[in-house]
Amino acid sequence: MSVTSLELRSEITPAGQLHLSLEERQVAAPGPDEVVVRVEAAPINPADLAELLGPADVATLSSAGTAERPVTTATVPDRLVPFAAARAGKSLAVGLEGAGVVVDAGANAQHLLGQVVSSGAGRMYTQYRKLQASDVVPFPEGVTPQQGASAYVNPLTALGMVSTMRLEGHSALVHTAAASNLGQMLNKLCIADGVQVVNVVRSAEQEEILRAIGATYVVNSTNPDFRDQVTTAISQTGATLAFDAVGGGPLGGQILAAMEAALVAKSPSRGPYGSPVHKQLYIYGRLDRSATTTPPSVGMAWGIGGWLLPYHLTRIGPQETSELRDRVAREITTTFASGYTGEISLAEALDPEVIRRCHRAATGEKYLLRPHSD
Amino acid sequence: MSVTSLELRSEITPAGQLHLSLEERQVAAPGPDEVVVRVEAAPINPADLAELLGPADVATLSSAGTAERPVTTATVPDRLVPFAAARAGKSLAVGLEGAGVVVDAGANAQHLLGQVVSSGAGRMYTQYRKLQASDVVPFPEGVTPQQGASAYVNPLTALGMVSTMRLEGHSALVHTAAASNLGQMLNKLCIADGVQVVNVVRSAEQEEILRAIGATYVVNSTNPDFRDQVTTAISQTGATLAFDAVGGGPLGGQILAAMEAALVAKSPSRGPYGSPVHKQLYIYGRLDRSATTTPPSVGMAWGIGGWLLPYHLTRIGPQETSELRDRVAREITTTFASGYTGEISLAEALDPEVIRRCHRAATGEKYLLRPHSD
Repeated sequence: MSVTSLELRSEITPAGQLHLSLEERQVAAPGPDEVVVRVEAAPINPADLAELLGPADVATLSSAGTAERPVTTATVPDRLVPFAAARAGKSLAVGLEGAGVVVDAGANAQHLLGQVVSSGAGRMYTQYRKLQASDVVPFPEGVTPQQGASAYVNPLTALGMVSTMRLEGHSALVHTAAASNLGQMLNKLCIADGVQVVNVVRSAEQEEILRAIGATYVVNSTNPDFRDQVTTAISQTGATLAFDAVGGGPLGGQILAAMEAALVAKSPSRGPYGSPVHKQLYIYGRLDRSATTTPPSVGMAWGIGGWLLPYHLTRIGPQETSELRDRVAREITTTFASGYTGEISLAEALDPEVIRRCHRAATGEKYLLRPHSD
Repeated sequence: MSVTSLELRSEITPAGQLHLSLEERQVAAPGPDEVVVRVEAAPINPADLAELLGPADVATLSSAGTAERPVTTATVPDRLVPFAAARAGKSLAVGLEGAGVVVDAGANAQHLLGQVVSSGAGRMYTQYRKLQASDVVPFPEGVTPQQGASAYVNPLTALGMVSTMRLEGHSALVHTAAASNLGQMLNKLCIADGVQVVNVVRSAEQEEILRAIGATYVVNSTNPDFRDQVTTAISQTGATLAFDAVGGGPLGGQILAAMEAALVAKSPSRGPYGSPVHKQLYIYGRLDRSATTTPPSVGMAWGIGGWLLPYHLTRIGPQETSELRDRVAREITTTFASGYTGEISLAEALDPEVIRRCHRAATGEKYLLRPHSD
């Protein structure tokens, strides 16, 4: 049975004009190993916004069309047009993850019919999505699609951070922008798994959010004695690995230098090269788009690098990835539960004001897209 | 047989005063597996200066004592005193490497007697050095100690860079401060081994030095079109690994961004994260002590880190290290030949003017210490 699906599309013209629109598509009947999911809920993650908007300037967003079929446009600054070259003129389906109910299934996927499932296969900002049966994960009885919408990006990122820590021989973590949805989830996971986290935040309000969920180490980078506080917390936890969502500016380098200072205080080095213990910072976000600065006081045994979930999943391979996904499905209403600022329809997802609110990414603010609501 | 040896010592007092002096020591007869080397030649490497001077300010160097037994002092700036805490009050023997003749040998090391050998075991700024037989490498017939003095730091660093390249799956290299003694050696090695090197230098004179020894890719970072030139050279060689002796400032980040630009130009990426090919920069020196800056245009698949020869040798293990050392011994007068600005005695090594000249580290300038000369 073929169904009609309204879906959100994003295109950037070669001249640098962004067009967001809703299109009707026919979703054909599933093949033997396929299912059709009626998508009920999909979160708007920062990574989704990056796909949705490309390098377009959100200040230039404006909307036309009808209330039911809006068309939203924005302009890519000239100097950033080359960064959109590879997608120029292509209409992209977006939405990294979401959850819904299996409404049609091929001969080999009949066991999934009627089940609530999640998928991280992309193109989820749509009403119906045809998927390989192997690309969906069913939830235990009683889990709703709203509860299961964010079962991929944040949960696997939090699990990926802890798995990176173990793979690379570290025993505790530092996390910046730590009061985010992801940061809260990381704390719940680490409390459950007995891993110590040094949380770096930017306000007293954010400190409170984390202490309320049981975080032990929370330091505020706007305090005048931040460097002493973060060095003490790093020394107490023994953290030699940090995940940084800020990316630009001095914060990451300050954290590495604090690790070096904590190590040298415990075990003074006679040579000129500082501690031989490796200190690693992974940048997984760019809340600050300025250059990352690293002082020489990090010693010589250190590294900084980009960290992306898909690269990490490739590194650990399909078996361990599958184990992580199964854990997320089991604990989706506890360890990996997400909260949302509000729910929006497909048409509302094109509202410039809603997009700008998503883009400001205030702490913990996140919207849930409901493709079948009006 | 015990011999008297004059050796160079470096001490920093807890109050931050550097003292360099010459001391007479008795070197006892070797044990069964030991040899005594009459040290004939030892280079003064930048890494030796770091040991010798610690964080002392070279502008404050002054000399007292006699011409034969000078005592040189300098002051460590207050804010840097903590960095010398671990060595405070300890008299250190220095000199990372050197070569000489085996003049005494234990029962199990008789085959080394009379041979010209090198060692990278440290404490080589002395007239006689007792060593484990396993810590010396004999040269082929006809190699002089002057020819063999620098058989450790620069040759193994150059070989270590190429070995890192192979270990981490890269196929070409970028090197900064590329006209240094080490940089020239790296070019000779890479020409011999068929590896392409993009050399980054700071002057036309340095360009000439490298072209004269057969380097193909030489770019001058002071040229106005440096970014285009380095991107072109990186694109032509496919280099995704760089070794950087500058350390501070924007150069390292510019090289990573050029790698990313070269990769994206060849294989455009549709997503917001740039090329998935990993780009790596290793900082092994700090000619520039300012902070390292990295722009966001490096994409997400990148890393920067410290690189030190001892850490690399630990990584590859004793078997491969031994193979590299044997190769250096075989090719010490060809691929791994070193040149020196001049030869100095132990007393001259304490001359403030000589130390300042070493410290300025002008391209290719390096002194050879001859512990038995007056």
